[in-house]
Amino acid sequence: MELIFTTREPDVLSKIQRPVENLVDLEERVAFVLREVRRRGDVAIREFTRQFDRMELEDFRATPAELEAAAGQLSDRFKEALATAERNIRLFHQTQWRANGQEVETTAGITCWRQAVPIEKIGIYIPGGSAPLFSTVLMLGVPASIAGCPNVYLFTPPRKDGTIHPAILYAAQLTGITNIFKIGGAQAIAAMAFGTESVPKVDKIFGPGNAFVTEAKRQVAALGVSIDMPAGPSEVFIVADENAPAEFVAADLLAQAEHSEESQVILATPSESLARRTIAEVRLQMRDLPRKTIIEKSMEKSAFIVTRSLDEALDLANAYAPEHLILMVERPRKLVERVRNAGSVFLGNYTPEALGDYASGTNHVLPTYGYTRAYSGISVDDFVKWIYFQKATEEGILNLGPVVEELAREEKLEAHVRSIAIRLKKLKRRKRK
Amino acid sequence: MELIFTTREPDVLSKIQRPVENLVDLEERVAFVLREVRRRGDVAIREFTRQFDRMELEDFRATPAELEAAAGQLSDRFKEALATAERNIRLFHQTQWRANGQEVETTAGITCWRQAVPIEKIGIYIPGGSAPLFSTVLMLGVPASIAGCPNVYLFTPPRKDGTIHPAILYAAQLTGITNIFKIGGAQAIAAMAFGTESVPKVDKIFGPGNAFVTEAKRQVAALGVSIDMPAGPSEVFIVADENAPAEFVAADLLAQAEHSEESQVILATPSESLARRTIAEVRLQMRDLPRKTIIEKSMEKSAFIVTRSLDEALDLANAYAPEHLILMVERPRKLVERVRNAGSVFLGNYTPEALGDYASGTNHVLPTYGYTRAYSGISVDDFVKWIYFQKATEEGILNLGPVVEELAREEKLEAHVRSIAIRLKKLKRRKRK
Repeated sequence: MELIFTTREPDVLSKIQRPVENLVDLEERVAFVLREVRRRGDVAIREFTRQFDRMELEDFRATPAELEAAAGQLSDRFKEALATAERNIRLFHQTQWRANGQEVETTAGITCWRQAVPIEKIGIYIPGGSAPLFSTVLMLGVPASIAGCPNVYLFTPPRKDGTIHPAILYAAQLTGITNIFKIGGAQAIAAMAFGTESVPKVDKIFGPGNAFVTEAKRQVAALGVSIDMPAGPSEVFIVADENAPAEFVAADLLAQAEHSEESQVILATPSESLARRTIAEVRLQMRDLPRKTIIEKSMEKSAFIVTRSLDEALDLANAYAPEHLILMVERPRKLVERVRNAGSVFLGNYTPEALGDYASGTNHVLPTYGYTRAYSGISVDDFVKWIYFQKATEEGILNLGPVVEELAREEKLEAHVRSIAIRLKKLKRRKRK
Repeated sequence: MELIFTTREPDVLSKIQRPVENLVDLEERVAFVLREVRRRGDVAIREFTRQFDRMELEDFRATPAELEAAAGQLSDRFKEALATAERNIRLFHQTQWRANGQEVETTAGITCWRQAVPIEKIGIYIPGGSAPLFSTVLMLGVPASIAGCPNVYLFTPPRKDGTIHPAILYAAQLTGITNIFKIGGAQAIAAMAFGTESVPKVDKIFGPGNAFVTEAKRQVAALGVSIDMPAGPSEVFIVADENAPAEFVAADLLAQAEHSEESQVILATPSESLARRTIAEVRLQMRDLPRKTIIEKSMEKSAFIVTRSLDEALDLANAYAPEHLILMVERPRKLVERVRNAGSVFLGNYTPEALGDYASGTNHVLPTYGYTRAYSGISVDDFVKWIYFQKATEEGILNLGPVVEELAREEKLEAHVRSIAIRLKKLKRRKRK
């Protein structure tokens, strides 16, 4: 945790380059899993589940009894909190839904429009690991339900006792998901991509995961399978002015840092005093955090940057293109139009990232690792495809046909020209009669 | 060209499986080009341009003089036709633009919205080859211009004399593109993906191309570079009833078939008579077409399917998930809601695909090869990313903070809990005063 001064460092960006992950054998190991599942289906999945999850599973599906039992295993307080989060996410994502595009008559007699059609088969991956990521179930299940996707399948690794955490089962059902498979890792991605005897091949794969899952998604995407977005470690960039409370800034940096050792956290501020106070606060607050070991690793890659101005801090944020951007400044709304690259933005001192992680209503599945330059966070748009429609009347083709003939001729596509000409001829012949 | 009867063939879909392209050495050859351009920049591009395009080029950029001269080399008739196409494409694509999302107060004091921000650097590839694909320039340049992308770069291979076809230069300028590079093939994709001394690295790559270009896009996408969509050979699926004019059906099949030897064309109809008449018409009409050799190859993979009903024909179309779907039936509008998988749909006897290829207003850059199950045709959406914003007031965090604390605790993310708690504590302390 050292200060970087933009006045002294001509190329700050190189100092905050994202760590490159080390992929020893990862590519081949994942390729092997994909190949085996593709070739041997359920048998291969059972083998990998035995090997990686130390589980013997005959049937991968969560049973109706398991689904039903989930609610009873959770506190009312938790279920109420989850219901509030679900409601907020739904309220916000509902505004993203657009059924039909506007119909436009581009030329007299030529009408065009587009229509949103839900993707038929959706696969959602939810990681296992130290904590049950029920929040991600909501972030993917809610937009799928708003889009009206008819078949949503959820995959998550079984726990040591062969069950799934009740919070995941409960959150899934809140969003209408009842097809739940106890399959994890690269084998889950393979099952979704290729299908097996008991797992349907899906049209699009969503969800975060560890290095194996991420690599498996990358590999099936290269085969043409649709995935949500490329993945990378989570990150936060905070732009703050001198009046931002250092204790809040530090708390938000630490919340991001606890996600994983690969997380990157950055503060950029024109106030050297704030930067110094934040570093002191980070040291103080991290002392008794349960994930201290992870946080220490992650803080090694952190950066505290003192800029010439607030503008320069924001320029740096745009150049870094962070997943999460927190603007702890006097009048954050004034900066909104200047944000060019970010996944999700948190305005003011009382909007910590944790709000958006769980319950403000925005999606927390966001592009990271600089992908915010060209990708967006998950929305209802990701669960539909748009189909174009057009209809020409006889008047329409009489009007526009000659234009198309001229253009197709220049592109030397004579059969295109004739597909117009044959119709124009017929219409003109009929007219003469 | 043989008839397939669904009554006799239990699995028609396997009969119309898309051809798998043969990729002898392609992967390694393209990987080599990418590696060299990444490592040696402009020098490597010059070498590949010499090798593949047989051209010595010192400067890759089209000069202002070349841009200016283009208009004079084209007929007024052509320029007028192009202007009509551009206007129609613009009229239709303008309806796709949505600047800001609706602001939603999900909980009292918690406001969320999303904002569309144009992608900063766009790369567009336009193939060279037998004909100048100026129509694709419009299809990509117009939505980029509507989205407001500040930097759009166009790449196209130089012709034998080192120039670019004036129709491409003219169409580019119509849509506001003036940064034009004479670079083709995999080396163009590499230049866009990695940047060189004279070519800027772009944020997203668009455009069709030959097998090398397609493979290069696939490879850079697997490295995390954003591309428009995976590519495959063009295709058309026609659903027609007994009253569809066989000569029109045949003309549209042939128009698709002339694109390339890999194109697939399919007719599904409940009328055996129409199917037989169409086959006869195809034989007749193809006789004197200039691209007869290509068409003959492509027609080898064609299918004429006689279905039990119109419904079954449409089911087949949805299962095949075609790029182009033509509905030559009595009341096509009645079938619109039943279309589940298609890129662009053409309704009625007087809406040939050629209209949409050039000038109806819809986009002709469409998913193919079954990708329509999860992908959409190009629209303005592809040139922006959506950024999420949220703002909590003090009241907002007092309302929602406890919910987030509860949920974060269940996910065992204690630093998340504290980033809320530290703020709630401060507010409560202040209140007590």
